[in-house]
Amino acid sequence: MRIRSLSTLECTNVLNANRLGCLGCAKDGHPYVVPFYFAHHDNHLYAFSMVGKKIGWMRLNPQVSVLVEEHVQGREWKSVIVDGRYEELSDRIGQKRERDHAWLLLSRHFDWWEPGALRTVMPPLSDHSDHVFFRIWIEQLSGREIKEDE
Amino acid sequence: MRIRSLSTLECTNVLNANRLGCLGCAKDGHPYVVPFYFAHHDNHLYAFSMVGKKIGWMRLNPQVSVLVEEHVQGREWKSVIVDGRYEELSDRIGQKRERDHAWLLLSRHFDWWEPGALRTVMPPLSDHSDHVFFRIWIEQLSGREIKEDE
Repeated sequence: MRIRSLSTLECTNVLNANRLGCLGCAKDGHPYVVPFYFAHHDNHLYAFSMVGKKIGWMRLNPQVSVLVEEHVQGREWKSVIVDGRYEELSDRIGQKRERDHAWLLLSRHFDWWEPGALRTVMPPLSDHSDHVFFRIWIEQLSGREIKEDE
Repeated sequence: MRIRSLSTLECTNVLNANRLGCLGCAKDGHPYVVPFYFAHHDNHLYAFSMVGKKIGWMRLNPQVSVLVEEHVQGREWKSVIVDGRYEELSDRIGQKRERDHAWLLLSRHFDWWEPGALRTVMPPLSDHSDHVFFRIWIEQLSGREIKEDE
């Protein structure tokens, strides 16, 4: 097996090709890791969530870490780690286009992880519900590829 | 789709049946999430690692979070979150049996993630190398199952 670092472009390709990651946040020195679905666009990971522990923690401390793994074939893997910053998006500040795009990419995944309230056909209006639309600004990106020897 | 909480026994079964998880640690409010291989035994997750960023961080702050996901079939999933505490194990304090057991379960996975130094046939002696043998003490355990409607 050979291990090599991925370039920024290769890391970006992994983020574009995948929807499921592990999102880590931290409060008072305690980390908390949960699965989350995201859509990568323009140096951000967009996502929806019900209000809960992870949203509460990220509101208090916006520093997050995201791990995305891609199984290539056999024993070949790529993994990408994002250092990022949480930003909550309100419908009032004009992110309707990003929200609709993210909703289009993500809505079919919600019933895996989220309570029934997210299973609607329209993107929720963050200001009028307990749904949150947020993004992670990608501050730093690194990745590795593990390949079989040729 | 139906979502339900897993009992402690069901969470434990997920930990027994899987080897790969996402390990989150934190330093100065920054979370850091990485893939790691573990072996569950007696309320602990055992693992080996080269010394690096995650070990350095866990030495400073032993609070960790571990996410383990199990794909059952189709769109059915189980996910388990562990709140735990890092403990580094020295060969001098008599964990040879646990180390050998964990090595047996884990050694075939190392070449996916770790540099070549870990690809040996014998468990490394923590005191004489840059390998670390550690465990996560499971303080709290929660899980969810997502099932198709019948």
